[in-house]
Amino acid sequence: MRSPTLVLYELAGANPELRFSPHCWKTRMALAHKGLQAKRIPWRFTEKDRIAFSGQGQVPVLVDDGEVVCDSWRIALHLEGRFASLPSLFGDPAAVPLAHFVNHWADQILLPEIARNILLDIFEQLDAKDRRYFRESREKRFGDRLENVVAAAAARPDTLTRILVPLRRLLADHAFVGGAAASYADYCVFGMFMWARCVGAAEFLAADDPVYLWRERLLDAFGGLARSAPVADSGPAP
Amino acid sequence: MRSPTLVLYELAGANPELRFSPHCWKTRMALAHKGLQAKRIPWRFTEKDRIAFSGQGQVPVLVDDGEVVCDSWRIALHLEGRFASLPSLFGDPAAVPLAHFVNHWADQILLPEIARNILLDIFEQLDAKDRRYFRESREKRFGDRLENVVAAAAARPDTLTRILVPLRRLLADHAFVGGAAASYADYCVFGMFMWARCVGAAEFLAADDPVYLWRERLLDAFGGLARSAPVADSGPAP
Repeated sequence: MRSPTLVLYELAGANPELRFSPHCWKTRMALAHKGLQAKRIPWRFTEKDRIAFSGQGQVPVLVDDGEVVCDSWRIALHLEGRFASLPSLFGDPAAVPLAHFVNHWADQILLPEIARNILLDIFEQLDAKDRRYFRESREKRFGDRLENVVAAAAARPDTLTRILVPLRRLLADHAFVGGAAASYADYCVFGMFMWARCVGAAEFLAADDPVYLWRERLLDAFGGLARSAPVADSGPAP
Repeated sequence: MRSPTLVLYELAGANPELRFSPHCWKTRMALAHKGLQAKRIPWRFTEKDRIAFSGQGQVPVLVDDGEVVCDSWRIALHLEGRFASLPSLFGDPAAVPLAHFVNHWADQILLPEIARNILLDIFEQLDAKDRRYFRESREKRFGDRLENVVAAAAARPDTLTRILVPLRRLLADHAFVGGAAASYADYCVFGMFMWARCVGAAEFLAADDPVYLWRERLLDAFGGLARSAPVADSGPAP
């Protein structure tokens, strides 16, 4: 291990090896991009006390040689600065604000619509102690019962197709969001797809979609890190 | 003039000085960013014969020393390569695919929703000979009468607010999409706002919106190039 002092807290399911958080996947891919290894610690939604040292209640939390960094975007900037001699996550400082835009798009536009489709898949993978928290917090956020939110999303699959248009157009011309090679902006979006994959959600991309083919390339990256990650027992994921 | 050989065909209204095309504004700002001047030629939707030399029927069309370049994105890449010693539109090659994503987002997500709000404002500014073409082509595209499309959009102003969330989040942290300084990705989005401004559309941003403040900065850029551009006679634009 090149960096034995890195510790990453990741959201886990009932199966502690099932790590499905989209934001944790951004960090996981960023670490792989840098060639860094971290000690990965499973954490559940309701274990707020276990990350209280970070001053907040969400993962990923990275502890780097005693320094605590929260939020996947800040973790990416931290890794880029601290390990500047390792492969760049952004390619150039000029790309950082644009990658930030892609991250906001992924978080604010893509994530909520994928969530609406997979809330029940997530729920089924949770540890028993997390289920009540998840149902209550998500039903409040989406304003309806999980079952109703998922049924409504399933009735309009074209919404996700339409949301993905800018990404689809880009990937018709470029192998990755970052261009010829993957960069952090790719991982910001890819995290959303790993979230769906890990909880065993139904496929929502056609096999000839440039987005599907891009996802395949990232599943294969870093020796198949993402492809070999544990998924829900309920069946093979896309 | 540093480049007397540049000729730019721009969409115009009944008033030939009213240049409202969002894509032409991308190119106009890109030229200003490079410090280049072009001979700007007004063109109407139905004057396909006048740009037939370009092998297609849309503007902007740039003629650079006899070389014809169509499509605002290709024009930006052309300017960046041909005038490499002038201020970069992208900052670094690593930012180009990400700027391309922003451009696709602006064209595919933001543009259609702004269009739904301003179709009648555009219609009113058109030369008489363009009106039938515009109504027929846009009513086909949007699947309803212009009046109905605009009324439906006006009834759900939150759609545009929601679409702008990633941009708003970004601009809460950065002065420009490009970071501390404007870059071509800024102009891709700003073109959409100039489109609405030039045809005299109603304001749809709150004065404390980071997007509003960013638009102010770009209106002031290059000596107030955009702010001083002619707008519809019907009243002061935002």
